[in-house]
Amino acid sequence: MSHKIPFKILSIEHIAIAVNDLNDPANLFGQLLGINHSSTEEIKEQKVLTDIYDTGNGKVELLQSVSDVSPIAKFLNKRGEGIHHIAFKVDDIHSALAYLKSNGVRLIDETPRKGAEGLFIAFLHPKSTNGVLIELCME
Amino acid sequence: MSHKIPFKILSIEHIAIAVNDLNDPANLFGQLLGINHSSTEEIKEQKVLTDIYDTGNGKVELLQSVSDVSPIAKFLNKRGEGIHHIAFKVDDIHSALAYLKSNGVRLIDETPRKGAEGLFIAFLHPKSTNGVLIELCME
Repeated sequence: MSHKIPFKILSIEHIAIAVNDLNDPANLFGQLLGINHSSTEEIKEQKVLTDIYDTGNGKVELLQSVSDVSPIAKFLNKRGEGIHHIAFKVDDIHSALAYLKSNGVRLIDETPRKGAEGLFIAFLHPKSTNGVLIELCME
Repeated sequence: MSHKIPFKILSIEHIAIAVNDLNDPANLFGQLLGINHSSTEEIKEQKVLTDIYDTGNGKVELLQSVSDVSPIAKFLNKRGEGIHHIAFKVDDIHSALAYLKSNGVRLIDETPRKGAEGLFIAFLHPKSTNGVLIELCME
């Protein structure tokens, strides 16, 4: 294609993993793999508690549900613990969403919303992305 | 814990995604998301063809099976397209494997082997890692 893509992916910002209990993977990612714990935060809108571990070059975001009816509870009931989504940092999330939509990518979030660590985030639908739930985020 | 961890995780090296046909996600990751395609390689031992896209800060590795009986074919038959594993770059893979094993983490590869891009790689068993297939790799 010769057209210009109106945004740039800057990095893999994080990999998010759904877990039953944050204490268990804390041992693995924190103590055994030695990744620095950078923050713990409750995302009330999503009914999840998140523990973030930062390699310095990409984060691991552990997600524990705080409700029986959250998206993470649904995921865990269906598939068990595992990778929930991946997040790419972009330089312009608004342009990215508009461009992807106009090219037929199905969006979960038509407009960005506030996520963990104060980032603007939006999810793409896994039906459009080879079964991978992709989050775009911007500072 | 007060003991010293004898290796360091340097980065999220890549996220690997199992796909039915490399041409389809090439459009998504390459054309729509604009991530630079960095290499294509066949890993004969694993019977997979891999296309690597590099954000500059973390890669996306697409995996297509070239056999009906490869690990990726099994994964696709069972779960369909989606994230297959994540890889952390470490500074000392031998120390990492010895340390993790001595701390009860189940290893798939007891000793490192050659993977894509000439890296030394080894996988940890998802039973020990909250359902996530984790690869460690070293240059």
